[in-house]
Amino acid sequence: MTNLPDIDSLSLRSQIAQMIVVRASGFLYDHQIQYPQWELPHQTLSKLIKDGIGGVIFVGGSAPELYLRTKQLQSEAEIPLLIAADVEEGVGQRFKGATYFPPPMALRSISTEFGIEIAIKYAKAMGAITAKEAAAIGLNWVLAPVVDVNNNPANPVINVRSFGEEPEQVINLTTALIQGASDYPVLTTAKHFPGHGDTAVDSHLQTPVLEHSRDRFDRIELPPFKAAIQAGVDSVMSAHVFAPSLDANTISTLSYPTLTRLLRGELGFEGLIVTDALIMAGVSDRTSPEEVAVEAILAGADILLMPIDADRTINAIVEAVESGKITRDRLKLSLARIWKAKAKILNSQPNLGNIGNPTHLQIAAEITAKSIQIHLPNSGLDSSVNGIETNLILVDNILTCGDFLKEHGEQSTASRSFNRIIVDTQSINALNLDKISSAFVQIFSRGNPFRGSAGMYGQIENLIKQLVNLNKLQAIALYGSPYNLDRLLPLLPPDIAWAFSYSQQAIAQIEVMRRLGIN
Amino acid sequence: MTNLPDIDSLSLRSQIAQMIVVRASGFLYDHQIQYPQWELPHQTLSKLIKDGIGGVIFVGGSAPELYLRTKQLQSEAEIPLLIAADVEEGVGQRFKGATYFPPPMALRSISTEFGIEIAIKYAKAMGAITAKEAAAIGLNWVLAPVVDVNNNPANPVINVRSFGEEPEQVINLTTALIQGASDYPVLTTAKHFPGHGDTAVDSHLQTPVLEHSRDRFDRIELPPFKAAIQAGVDSVMSAHVFAPSLDANTISTLSYPTLTRLLRGELGFEGLIVTDALIMAGVSDRTSPEEVAVEAILAGADILLMPIDADRTINAIVEAVESGKITRDRLKLSLARIWKAKAKILNSQPNLGNIGNPTHLQIAAEITAKSIQIHLPNSGLDSSVNGIETNLILVDNILTCGDFLKEHGEQSTASRSFNRIIVDTQSINALNLDKISSAFVQIFSRGNPFRGSAGMYGQIENLIKQLVNLNKLQAIALYGSPYNLDRLLPLLPPDIAWAFSYSQQAIAQIEVMRRLGIN
Repeated sequence: MTNLPDIDSLSLRSQIAQMIVVRASGFLYDHQIQYPQWELPHQTLSKLIKDGIGGVIFVGGSAPELYLRTKQLQSEAEIPLLIAADVEEGVGQRFKGATYFPPPMALRSISTEFGIEIAIKYAKAMGAITAKEAAAIGLNWVLAPVVDVNNNPANPVINVRSFGEEPEQVINLTTALIQGASDYPVLTTAKHFPGHGDTAVDSHLQTPVLEHSRDRFDRIELPPFKAAIQAGVDSVMSAHVFAPSLDANTISTLSYPTLTRLLRGELGFEGLIVTDALIMAGVSDRTSPEEVAVEAILAGADILLMPIDADRTINAIVEAVESGKITRDRLKLSLARIWKAKAKILNSQPNLGNIGNPTHLQIAAEITAKSIQIHLPNSGLDSSVNGIETNLILVDNILTCGDFLKEHGEQSTASRSFNRIIVDTQSINALNLDKISSAFVQIFSRGNPFRGSAGMYGQIENLIKQLVNLNKLQAIALYGSPYNLDRLLPLLPPDIAWAFSYSQQAIAQIEVMRRLGIN
Repeated sequence: MTNLPDIDSLSLRSQIAQMIVVRASGFLYDHQIQYPQWELPHQTLSKLIKDGIGGVIFVGGSAPELYLRTKQLQSEAEIPLLIAADVEEGVGQRFKGATYFPPPMALRSISTEFGIEIAIKYAKAMGAITAKEAAAIGLNWVLAPVVDVNNNPANPVINVRSFGEEPEQVINLTTALIQGASDYPVLTTAKHFPGHGDTAVDSHLQTPVLEHSRDRFDRIELPPFKAAIQAGVDSVMSAHVFAPSLDANTISTLSYPTLTRLLRGELGFEGLIVTDALIMAGVSDRTSPEEVAVEAILAGADILLMPIDADRTINAIVEAVESGKITRDRLKLSLARIWKAKAKILNSQPNLGNIGNPTHLQIAAEITAKSIQIHLPNSGLDSSVNGIETNLILVDNILTCGDFLKEHGEQSTASRSFNRIIVDTQSINALNLDKISSAFVQIFSRGNPFRGSAGMYGQIENLIKQLVNLNKLQAIALYGSPYNLDRLLPLLPPDIAWAFSYSQQAIAQIEVMRRLGIN
């Protein structure tokens, strides 16, 4: 990488471009783009990089592919790019080959079961491994940890991405994660300011309203952000939520009282403020993309993430500066923070040899195993297991869980001579229960039951009820959300063996089946 | 790459090691190995490379991953490795990101429909693109084309991998493919000698017996091999088949009369003779791995592909040379051929920029579209399409078609507001037909109906019969084998619209639905 040029040597347009982070596919070739409405083809991306945009956020591709991709793009950039990704569950969550941890809420479970010290140890390891592997493939900006306190079980978007339901838990675990990451040349991010944990609305779809008093924010939502700042977090991401007690006029992403007075002033945060993705309906439904961009900067944002159109956004900001709406001093402050962040990651040397480390995989496996819950009936499972004839696998959507199913291929079919049936919520009505005798049911459903898909998860619940009534359910394993478990348990007679795993990966399934005595 | 050392400067063991090609995963990390019984972990592979094995055959991983993998392994090798893969349908068949063509038999269909000239043009393009993209990621040995004449519809293993049912077709198309590839630094392979097209047995599972007379071999099976040799094919792969008229004592892979007298002598082939994989039951069931290795070399093989244990194989051959069973002159002949082959690929420069070329993708799309067959009833489809309520997708095994289903996600669900149901052959009995009204059925089944899975494909046929009887079938699309189409058509009333595609990829599905008027 090169050194950073003097900020003043850049044109106004180039300075503004540095405040923009656009989205791209992690695959190398345009024909592999999976979300053409959001992911730029290479030529467009290259042009933006030549224009001096500040960074790129990636989705898709394997870890080695991302290594090649970031190397290629950095070589095209005059000023080193920020390279971001939502790797909340480890780099493997997004980029295959790297370590994939269970969702953060698994650590809350370990804390409850084994004590907070061991949970903190794992959180620190998770931060270190994620940061090391991010740097290994050229990522320099980890968009984690989520520091939202998930104290609303109906939360459709945070859910298991949170480290807990109590501020204390969240503080302990996210602080450890940030500290673990701090030895590596990557930026960390506390999100989503001022707190996205207590809402039943998904800000991807509409704007959640947080009716809390300022006092309640001080007690619940803000302490984890304070702790993250204390721990040296590099950036804070704004939420597209409307919190009238903080700003009665607009959403947090566009709110000067929230981002500047509260976050910068009261909380004393001096790092990067980045908006959540500006393509999300929670902000994009409110006003024009141009106005959103200008308002976000005036509110205090340094980086605009995924604006709908980067070029138009840059033009709108140029205009706002030229008209005096945004001052040049205001711009300089953001640029100085961006330069400070880039200075930290400037000398990172990607190295694929830092991926695939058995120790990393071992720690992910430990967190997976330690956060599994098992209930065996008093009579034990041995006798009933011998009666299981059907392995019934229920998933949200077969079409979108391809990788996941492929990974489970061996595990699911290896298990003796079960009659294996896979059904998703769209096909569940066409299942003929007469063809199922005694069943081991495995549910892979991560979506929150209360969200838009509530009806779909309701279908799974109806099926379970029918199997119980027909006396056909022998054992059940749920992989995903503990809030689904809370809804499932009342449906089960006490003599039914059950298991719950936060992780939906194959290693979780192997462990669950072993401990249920099924494999 | 380095230059080749003098053969005589190598120790006996190193010379023999050069005759071995082992299998490895195309993924970079050991924890991603998908077939641990066959794919060596990195440390073992590295040791074999230091010992001087001749090459590696890869399965798995994306094109960029293989690029990194081959670069890494070549850097560990003192003598450049042969890097092979079964890319019969283009590099994209095995390594994502590269061009994925329909199965070769699609070209036969284009020949019938549009004339042999256009089919030859496509075969040549397919050879050129496959060779260029292979070289782009460090592959230097294309294990294609299949030159077997598939004149037995019950063939469980060749099937759509063949270019036709007549020697003439196969000769025209495979010659064009070999010529197309000849401009690039990769080796081509005619397989499987002396012909694997007329058998109902899969040599992966047991040894097929070819009861043909020598005269019949001269008329049907051998001409495509002669043509391939004429066209300059670099290697010929032996088949694990028993052909008594060629050798009454043993299978072709171990037969001196077949490999040396017939292939080298009568057919005058001077290139590399490579065995088919030695882990296949068709050969491994017959005698010890050590004896197989020695016998294959005595028969005339230069390269042993995927021996069960490379180290033990090398030791057995060393012993056979030291005991005089294999002469040093015999070894030298093989080494000279291997050196000649390696000299051809020595200066290949992998370049990921040669993948993702829109022209390559366009040619694959043309072959896909031109080989689709459509039958629309006289009344047209418009009225009936409006009555379709269910999009019923039938696949062989949901667990193993993850990538494929993911790719079809958009296409399958985008189509209006169909009730989408996915069922595989293991779950088909649990489908409640009462829940299906008028249906568009899509079958993705490539396996030959006559093979071990005949019963499974039979279940799909039974389902179609029931839907026809219930008057619920509106239209049907079959993606895969034309031999399945031959079985399907008698089941369909004439007013049912149907489509057939050799390709199972998303582009095929989009084209089929467009031409059926469904999307």
